[in-house]
Amino acid sequence: MKMIDGSICAPHGFLAAGLHAGIRKNPQKPDLALIFSQRPAAAAGVFTQNKIKAAPLLLTQKHLKNGVLQAIIVNSGNANACTGKQGMLDAKEMAKITSETLNIDVSDVAVASTGVIGVPLPVKKIIHAVALGGHSVSKQGHDAAAEAIMTTDIFAKAIAIELEIGGKMVRIGGIAKGSGMIHPNMATMLAFITTDAAISHEALQQALSTVNQKTFNMVSVDGDTSTNDMVVILANGMAQNPQIQSAKDPDWAIFCQGLSFLCTFLAKEIARDGEGATKLLEIHVAGAATEKQAQLAARAISSSPLVKTAIFGEDANWGRIACAVGYSGAKIKLDKLSVELDSILLFKNGVPLPFDEVIAKQSLQQKIIRINVHLGVGSAEATAWGCDLTYDYIKINASYRS
Amino acid sequence: MKMIDGSICAPHGFLAAGLHAGIRKNPQKPDLALIFSQRPAAAAGVFTQNKIKAAPLLLTQKHLKNGVLQAIIVNSGNANACTGKQGMLDAKEMAKITSETLNIDVSDVAVASTGVIGVPLPVKKIIHAVALGGHSVSKQGHDAAAEAIMTTDIFAKAIAIELEIGGKMVRIGGIAKGSGMIHPNMATMLAFITTDAAISHEALQQALSTVNQKTFNMVSVDGDTSTNDMVVILANGMAQNPQIQSAKDPDWAIFCQGLSFLCTFLAKEIARDGEGATKLLEIHVAGAATEKQAQLAARAISSSPLVKTAIFGEDANWGRIACAVGYSGAKIKLDKLSVELDSILLFKNGVPLPFDEVIAKQSLQQKIIRINVHLGVGSAEATAWGCDLTYDYIKINASYRS
Repeated sequence: MKMIDGSICAPHGFLAAGLHAGIRKNPQKPDLALIFSQRPAAAAGVFTQNKIKAAPLLLTQKHLKNGVLQAIIVNSGNANACTGKQGMLDAKEMAKITSETLNIDVSDVAVASTGVIGVPLPVKKIIHAVALGGHSVSKQGHDAAAEAIMTTDIFAKAIAIELEIGGKMVRIGGIAKGSGMIHPNMATMLAFITTDAAISHEALQQALSTVNQKTFNMVSVDGDTSTNDMVVILANGMAQNPQIQSAKDPDWAIFCQGLSFLCTFLAKEIARDGEGATKLLEIHVAGAATEKQAQLAARAISSSPLVKTAIFGEDANWGRIACAVGYSGAKIKLDKLSVELDSILLFKNGVPLPFDEVIAKQSLQQKIIRINVHLGVGSAEATAWGCDLTYDYIKINASYRS
Repeated sequence: MKMIDGSICAPHGFLAAGLHAGIRKNPQKPDLALIFSQRPAAAAGVFTQNKIKAAPLLLTQKHLKNGVLQAIIVNSGNANACTGKQGMLDAKEMAKITSETLNIDVSDVAVASTGVIGVPLPVKKIIHAVALGGHSVSKQGHDAAAEAIMTTDIFAKAIAIELEIGGKMVRIGGIAKGSGMIHPNMATMLAFITTDAAISHEALQQALSTVNQKTFNMVSVDGDTSTNDMVVILANGMAQNPQIQSAKDPDWAIFCQGLSFLCTFLAKEIARDGEGATKLLEIHVAGAATEKQAQLAARAISSSPLVKTAIFGEDANWGRIACAVGYSGAKIKLDKLSVELDSILLFKNGVPLPFDEVIAKQSLQQKIIRINVHLGVGSAEATAWGCDLTYDYIKINASYRS
């Protein structure tokens, strides 16, 4: 497996574009992304668990039912959530203009939106932009597409990899946006993945659901879960590998390895670019009774405002880490519990250890902070990612209708 | 029922003191509180649900088993949590010196600590301070005691009320500390309540557990739950009302009304004084299927960093409120859902309403922000309290080992 250029356009048969529809105030930035497969593709998705689901998300779920998609249209700047019946009509308009412009079936279009909730979507601007620029999808459009889906993100998130499956080179590409409202237990952000692997819809859905659980679902920025988040993957089969039919196929595991690498990369990029973040937290929990409990503990630490502010303050206040483990719901043995910051053991078998404050401080001045916790119960483990909580998080989110 | 002066010393037979043991750096501020009942008192408590429980908390639970307490000793500046076996020995030393100084049974002493986790307790300083100043408990000591339990709190929280029960005037007093780590689903802070009501241990425990659920457990500052939090109540019977034996006694409901008033007052004071807070949020959720679901929704709103930052920014970004309701776990009917900010209806029956931004902004400039949400499902309701999330929260918590 190796990383390659081209992001979502690296897999054969995929084109993309980033258009400027004028939904966002900034006229320099594209706010509308199109992703197009030259052939109908097997498709799969994972979606927010928020009970309030935005109209585009509901429409995409409907269009995904037959397991086939050919294009994705995404706007930033407006979530088209809590927008009543008009919201669904507008989402359908987005699908319609995309299908007309790209000459594909309307039910093969996925629609996604991200931005402010509860404001009517300026759908005419979108229709105009797609009608005018939708034809411009190209092999070069991936950067503009990655930029178009950003909201308060500082940098675009994109990756592509190449790996061999069934004797053929297969490519997987992905773009994502994160920043605020990133939290476990849902798709938690927008990510769009393309691949030229030949894989059935069922095997693809199973791969995405499995990988999502350990990657995107393990990222937390602020603990809020959104109305709009989704991960959608399209697999158009143009790599011509023998089709992966099910999770029992040995090639499925290989495909999952590639997908997992890609999703882990994007998940970490999302955490690193959390609103106002200055540091990426990587939290590894071992010694848990079950993997689910390890995930609970890891996510409690990565979501704790007290841990996140301590990391921002470069303070080795490990008591807050232990405390978060305590309320996570995971089983612990206090007399076996240990907490390690990078390679400095701070708490071992329930007893605090003396440590060098200067070295601990130096360790915390790094951009990537690794926290290792052992629960002392079993042998299951999990990794979660998060970021520090900073003045800039407040600044970004206290500003008007971000 | 009326409010009276004297806080925890208002009920007959209760004395208090705030001592300076030198645990905290600030030499001006007391850091050790003593509360003493001249007679052994019926006692009850509610405790953190964090699986990592501080030594003093475990000791207090043990001492509470027979339903009798006569004194409470509380230190700030050090949580005596995650301190291994030595922590329990130190907590026992705190109980011992208190019992010796006040000439009471050691098993009738409750011990509480609050402050940094994982640092050995400077117990000798505490022993010295109690031996030297423990006799100074008095009717005037309540203010110093309320001050002594503060950590990052800006102001002391105290109240006393008087009400008639069974033909006698009964008094209830309380002090509390909050600030960081305040979150539902546990005692969530320290509160110590005194009353001269005559009430059995069982009836007292039931009253505290019931009232706690709707008051202290409905406050959120940052979503973290601590290793040390507890609410303890002592009832010494000196008001000479006919003893309240059980929850079936009509006087029990009257006592609960008084206790509920007192705990609501303290809970709101804790929210108002949340770390860095500039505004108190009062969130009322109606139309829920059950009270528990109403509580879930109310607490999700009061805990959401995105809602809290929007309130700090005085931005009527009600979509974040709807979003928090959506992930709260409470059942909703989206086409019946409504969101109101003070008296401005922003979202009704699933449809956003146009509103006057200037008036909304004015409304948000107040110090108390009321959010009303109707879930459109049933008739149950609940209230939660919280505060905004500000630059100062970051400042307080990013500073070294707060």
